[in-house]
Amino acid sequence: MTFDPAALRFGANGLLPAIAQDATTGEVLMLAWMNADAVARTLETGRVTYWSRSRQAFWVKGETSGNLQHLVEMRLDCDRDALLVLVRQDGPACHTGRRSCFYTAIRDAEEVEIMQPEA
Amino acid sequence: MTFDPAALRFGANGLLPAIAQDATTGEVLMLAWMNADAVARTLETGRVTYWSRSRQAFWVKGETSGNLQHLVEMRLDCDRDALLVLVRQDGPACHTGRRSCFYTAIRDAEEVEIMQPEA
Repeated sequence: MTFDPAALRFGANGLLPAIAQDATTGEVLMLAWMNADAVARTLETGRVTYWSRSRQAFWVKGETSGNLQHLVEMRLDCDRDALLVLVRQDGPACHTGRRSCFYTAIRDAEEVEIMQPEA
Repeated sequence: MTFDPAALRFGANGLLPAIAQDATTGEVLMLAWMNADAVARTLETGRVTYWSRSRQAFWVKGETSGNLQHLVEMRLDCDRDALLVLVRQDGPACHTGRRSCFYTAIRDAEEVEIMQPEA
């Protein structure tokens, strides 16, 4: 079946969540949002492109920082309302300089930082 | 810092996306939604509990099917608006019987099923 970005199930805001996962290590790097055009641009360009909810604009990940996400494979889930994007990540994925945005764990009811910014 | 579920940043619907990842293999199993109470219940019970948008009710994953998700660790992202839940998954995570809900890949503009239901 030919894939049509418009046939995904977007939320009321026209967006769905996209999980970026390191294609090699399996590490979950971040979660951001895509609309149908961002999905299409990601597939066309091979550069993972989100929709920035704060800026209300397309967001080519790493376009400013240089920390690009190169698309390896896009997958959709059974409900067609979430995406898993396997990537090759240049540099850190998180704007804090950490490899992943998920660097805070909850352990014994405390927030614990489990990852340092890369040098 | 003590963790307070209410200090997460929920969307307008009071929900945020939670990614379930196999704690051992790193496989991303599914994405579902939690409100503050679902986060608290997950941490208290050790059974991953979502908020079902279709049923508008708490959803203890696997309560009906037996395919429970046992909490290994919960992590939050830099924006505090997404969760990564490391789990030990009993049986398949997907209601279709597949290990993961992300069993459809987009390859050469076609949807390709890359995973079969478990026996």
